[in-house]
This record gives sequence, C-alpha cells and structure tokens, in this order.
Amino acid sequence: MKGEIMRVELISVGTEILLGDIVNTNTAYLSKELATLGIDVHRQTTVGDNRDRLLQTLSTAFCENDTVIITGGLGPTDDDITKECAAEYFNRDFYFHEYSWAKILERLTRSGRNLITDNNKKQAMIPNGAIVLENFCGTAPGIIIEEENKRIILMPGPPREMKDMFKKSVRPYLERFSSKKFISKYIRFYGIGESLLETKIKYLMDNQTNPTLALYAKTGEVLLRVTASDDTVELCEKLINDKVLEIEKIVGEYIYLIGDDNISETQTELHNVVANLLIENKLTISVAESLTGGQLSSMLVEKGGISVSLLEGIVCYSNKSKIHALGVKEETLNQFGAVSEQTAKEMVIGVSRRLNSDVAVATTGIAGPKSDDTNKPVGLVYIAVYYQGEVKVFERIFTGSRELIRTRSSIEALNEVRKIILEHI
Amino acid sequence: MKGEIMRVELISVGTEILLGDIVNTNTAYLSKELATLGIDVHRQTTVGDNRDRLLQTLSTAFCENDTVIITGGLGPTDDDITKECAAEYFNRDFYFHEYSWAKILERLTRSGRNLITDNNKKQAMIPNGAIVLENFCGTAPGIIIEEENKRIILMPGPPREMKDMFKKSVRPYLERFSSKKFISKYIRFYGIGESLLETKIKYLMDNQTNPTLALYAKTGEVLLRVTASDDTVELCEKLINDKVLEIEKIVGEYIYLIGDDNISETQTELHNVVANLLIENKLTISVAESLTGGQLSSMLVEKGGISVSLLEGIVCYSNKSKIHALGVKEETLNQFGAVSEQTAKEMVIGVSRRLNSDVAVATTGIAGPKSDDTNKPVGLVYIAVYYQGEVKVFERIFTGSRELIRTRSSIEALNEVRKIILEHI
Repeated sequence: MKGEIMRVELISVGTEILLGDIVNTNTAYLSKELATLGIDVHRQTTVGDNRDRLLQTLSTAFCENDTVIITGGLGPTDDDITKECAAEYFNRDFYFHEYSWAKILERLTRSGRNLITDNNKKQAMIPNGAIVLENFCGTAPGIIIEEENKRIILMPGPPREMKDMFKKSVRPYLERFSSKKFISKYIRFYGIGESLLETKIKYLMDNQTNPTLALYAKTGEVLLRVTASDDTVELCEKLINDKVLEIEKIVGEYIYLIGDDNISETQTELHNVVANLLIENKLTISVAESLTGGQLSSMLVEKGGISVSLLEGIVCYSNKSKIHALGVKEETLNQFGAVSEQTAKEMVIGVSRRLNSDVAVATTGIAGPKSDDTNKPVGLVYIAVYYQGEVKVFERIFTGSRELIRTRSSIEALNEVRKIILEHI
Repeated sequence: MKGEIMRVELISVGTEILLGDIVNTNTAYLSKELATLGIDVHRQTTVGDNRDRLLQTLSTAFCENDTVIITGGLGPTDDDITKECAAEYFNRDFYFHEYSWAKILERLTRSGRNLITDNNKKQAMIPNGAIVLENFCGTAPGIIIEEENKRIILMPGPPREMKDMFKKSVRPYLERFSSKKFISKYIRFYGIGESLLETKIKYLMDNQTNPTLALYAKTGEVLLRVTASDDTVELCEKLINDKVLEIEKIVGEYIYLIGDDNISETQTELHNVVANLLIENKLTISVAESLTGGQLSSMLVEKGGISVSLLEGIVCYSNKSKIHALGVKEETLNQFGAVSEQTAKEMVIGVSRRLNSDVAVATTGIAGPKSDDTNKPVGLVYIAVYYQGEVKVFERIFTGSRELIRTRSSIEALNEVRKIILEHI
C-alpha cells in the first residue's frame, strides 16, 4: 500500500447531527488534516445511530474507497452501535480489553463518578485483531481494523477527544502509508482582502503544484497555507521557504506572521501577536473604547500573562465618561462630536495619562444599526494610537452588521498598535 | 403524498467542504428546520463538484428516500454541475428562463459588475417543467423537479442565500405536504446544567410524543424546544402552553425567557435580556472588570441603544487601576488579595460612585492557565452586584479553559444583574 494514494470516506454517526442539534465540525477538521497529508476525501456522510443504515453506508463506502474514518457512536449506551457495526462488517468477535478498562475506571473515578455500571464495560470491548487507540481525553478508546487493502478507523465523536486522538495516534498511523513527507507553513495577512490577495498572487495560485497554496478568510484576516511534499523534511522546507520568499516579494507589507502548523490557532491571531509584542518588549498599555465597548481589551486579556502590560481599559460609552475618565473637553464633543478625529485624539491622550502607560489606543465610531444624531454614516470609526508621546489618528469606514463593525474596529485598532510598536522597537 | 411522511436525504455539493476549507453549517440548519416540520432526515452526504460521484450519490439517495435536497454547485462556472446532474437524473432538457436572467442582470449591475459574461447566462437555464425559486440574496435561482413520488430541491450553497430561499419558498412548499401545522416555543434556562435539567424533567422527556421536547446546551445556557403538531395553530398553541406550564412548575426558577421561534438567536441571549431590562426600566449601569477584561461590557454593547444605560466600564486589570480608578484600598488588596470578596465589594462600590449609576457589577478572579501567587485555585471568581445602595457578592468556581472561565464569569455576572433588577422593579 505504501506510496499508493488512499481513497477515504468520512462517516459521522449521530442522530443529534441528523436532527441538526449540533453542527458537525469534525468533518471539516479531518478533511483539512487529511489534505495536508496528501489524502483526498471522496465523500462525507452522516447517518444516525441506526444499524442497518450504517452497515449499508459502510458497504457503499468500501465500493469506492479503501479507507473509512468514522467518528461518533462509541459511547457506553445501547444506542451507540458504531463499533458493533464495524466488527460485523469485518466479521470480528469482541474481547474484553483489560488495559482500556483500567483506563476507563481511572477516568470515571477521577471525575467523581461513584456509580460505574456494566454499560461502561462496553467501551472496553475490542474487536479481535484491532489496533486500540488510547483516549487521553475521554473513556471511549479508538479502534483500527485492517483487512487486506481496507481499513476502518473509529474515533469518538466529541471534537476535543477526536482531535487529540487524531494528532497522537491516527495522523502518525496514516503518515506511515505515504512515502512522502508533508510540511505546511501558514502566512497570516492583515489589511488586504481575500479577493485582492488572490488577484495579486494569481499566477502563483494558478500554477501551484508543489507546494500547494490554500487561502482561508477570517474576519479581518486572511490566512495562506503553503504545503510542500517531498522525500525529506529538509527538501519540503526548502520548497516552502522559496515559495514564501516569492510571496513576500509581492505582498510582504500585509504579512503579520509566518508560522509553522504546530502553532495553535489562538496563539497566532493578530491580537495575540500584539499581546506578545507588548509583553516581550515590556511595554504597558491603556485602552479607551467607545464603540468597541470592551472588546479590544477583552481580546488582549485572552492572552495569559497580559497583566504585566495591560494597565487599564476604559469603556467610555457615554460622553460623561469620556469627559470624567479621560478628560475629553466638552467643547470638543460639542464642536466635533463624539465620533471625530479630535475626540479620538483626546481620548487616547487622556487614557495614556491616567496610569502613564507607554502605549495607548482609543476607538470611537458608529456601530449602528442606526447613526447617531449627526449626519455621520454608520461604520465611520476613528482609531487613535499613542506611543510614548506620539499620537496618530486613523479614519476608517467599515461595512456590515453592528457586531462586524465593532470586531473590525477592534482588530484594525490592534493592527495600528502593532505597527506603531514595530516602528519604535 | 399529502399526509405521508417524507424521507429526506440532504446532499451538500462543494469541493471546498470536502477539503475542510469551510465548515458545513447548511446541513444542521436544514435538518433542524425539517425536524420542526415533522420531517426526518435519513442521511446527510457531501460530495465534491464531480459529475459521476454526484449522480451515483443521487441514485443511492433515491433508493431509500423520496426527497433529496441539494445545496451548492449552482454557480456560473464550469465547475458547478449540480443543476446539470439533477436534470440528467430526471432526463430533462434546459430552457432559457427570461425572468431569472432579468433578475441576474439587475443584481450584477447593481453590485457594480460591468463585465457580464456568457457564463452568467448558465444560471438562468432551467430544466423543463421545474419549479423556479427566486433568489433574493444572490444570482442562482433555486429549482424543484418533481416526478411521480420523487422530488429534488436545489438551493444555492452560501448560507445567507440558502436560508432566505428556504424560509420564503422551500418551507412553504414542504408544508403543503403535511396535513398538520407545526409550532415551536423555546424556553431558555440559566443556572442549571443540561444533565441536571434533563434529570429533573426526565419523565417529560421520556414520555414525549406531542409536543416533542429537544434540549440544546450553549455556554452557560440551556435551551429547550417544545414543538407541537396538530390540525390548527390554536390547537398547537394549547398543547405547547400546557406543556410549558408543566415545565415551569418543575424548573421555573431557572427560566429567563420563553419565546416563539421567530425571535432571532441574538435577541434572546441572556446578555440581550439584561440590556433590555436596563433600557426598558431606564436604569444606568457601570461595570468594573478584572478577569473578564472587557467582555462583560462588550456583551452589553452588542445591544444597539445601550448607550442610554451603560455609563462606563473599567477594565481594571492591574492593582494600580483598581486603586486609582475604583478606590479599592491598598490594605484590602494586601490583606485579602485582588481575588477576594472584599476586593469585589470595593470594586463594585467604587465603580458605581464614579458616575452614580443605578446598577453596577464587578468581576475579579483567576482565569488561568496559571494561578496567581496565592494558593487560590484557577477558576475562583468573585462577582459583586450593586443596586441603588445594596451590594451582594457571589463566590463561584468555574472549570475549563481561560476563555471558558472568562465567558462563564461574564454570563454569571450578567445573570446576577438580571436577578437583582427583577427583585427591585
């Protein structure tokens, strides 16, 4: 099998998915992970906890594919029939797996469950000849059954358990089938939309073979995944680094982070990059928020350890607060309005002075759905940044819902903080 | 067909879903909507933009089901082959639909597209004898092909377009197949976990026939959907109201909102309920946040019109700020620590006094991942609420990630605000 390309069908089992009670995120996660291994998913199917329908789905799946990955239906109750169906399909009996049982008991006891029923023993029953995958986040072990050129991989349904098991056991198992290595790098962009970025690197996107390029858009940010495959890690890295250099030449000014795929999502977002910049450079920051209403501060606080940098945030949603807490002049508010360059400037200076922070940032704007009593449009936002005495104010117009305008303003403001720090350090 | 129960398979078409580049939310939405119509979904399948595989999936689907709903693959490019495959399956030719073309031209011109290519005409081609569903949010019309007891319903992939088309055309179409009416109400709970709630109303859950009950858990909140079906709307409402009364008798103390299913998700969340309470009762509020770091204020600001109530928020992440902005005593911080009942109390009094608000709320706690230098555990949180001179402090221990502990603290604090307002008005 080594070197051949696997054909995979993903099956999700669970009546709660069929009823629409939960959104199936496992499938997207697995598909993306498999893509980085060069493995194509040919179909994704969801069925309920129903023996006949699962067996029939398995038959259809193995007509066209050699590998089936199933998530869900490994629980302790009678409803959970995934393992039973897989064993039936491959004609295997069960045995009681002592190690898994010990692990299940340990976990149930630790979580304070006194009542351990015979039901729980079901999760320690393993089809003969199967590979057992330890579950470090839950009670249901994973299972791989191989037969000739077919294989079925069973993982628990809860995303946290599934992802952990995939990373620790399934991914390494699948990697053994490929003679190639696969390496990815992620380039993170801010300040350029997905479609403009695509246009600018169109000839690279159109002519991609190895490395491959994949674009992902998030609110305010765009992510480009560069994946190379070759015989060795070194050769992969060389391919990627050459491609990254090419991309940097065209759109380098919009890149805020280049990282490998082992960095978790949350550590790489723009606000975490800003939080890290502050902490690493021992800079203190104060925040004054009108339309963002605490969101910007809250994004910084997502980072553990930010307490050394974040001195204070003021949610000055009322004019009273802008005057009282930040020393914005009443004349300024009357003459230019709360949503103005002048107010933003006085806000950022005012908040920086409260506790003498090195850096400060202020936002004021109209989030909608209605405008204020002025003629200013919904989406008009002023962002002021302060760095040790220097002040810059930016005017922006954002579109979208109230929520989106606020989020874009927070991210945009954090990006201006990032830029002013980089100018000075 | 009227009165018979439909058997439905949902098919999502799109290579971007197979690659895991987007999470498929359409399927959950449709499944849930169909459930409220009493229609069961028997399987959900995703295939790429691939003719052979889609045709084969269609064949399999119609072996077991009478109705297939497909989303995606109705775009203008050559890749988009859903309509072509459906027409091929039902042996239909295409004709050019003038009305759809006029609508497409109108939309493209309005969005500033000057270059309208022949490609776009593809979206106005309709299979002979099909029902055309107007797309009010995009260019691709929806299509229904009926033949004997089978029917196929095609809708565009972008969720906004699909949902709008479902509500305006597909749902009314499907309702005609049922002789019954279906009505739902949603009961929203706070302060009780999903499993405890399930235990308390177990005999109702176990013996449900009509109305049916469905539980949904969200962070910190639980939702119970009660769906009744009967010959008239009035009979449905009677059934639901009786059931709601029964539920209120058992767990009424945890209910914060009962609403019909027409209220959008965001208007019914706990923080919106609190924002409405403040606005409607002309109460002003000030917020002091340590561990929640602006999140609580930001939740209130999600509500347009909150500016009349929210005077100010202080993100007092540093002790300096707690002392300087809120007047927390240094001795209190030294003796009891920043995470203590005493500090929370001084915070809430301090913030209420700044602008003399009617209501105030303060949070302080250890969000993790590490504890502070004291022996206090991660997840320990103090919440103080103030209402016109009266102060209450609550100690809570939350588990989970840093993010989860912060979110739970924000929601818990808002719930205490809700309760103290309800005690007084």
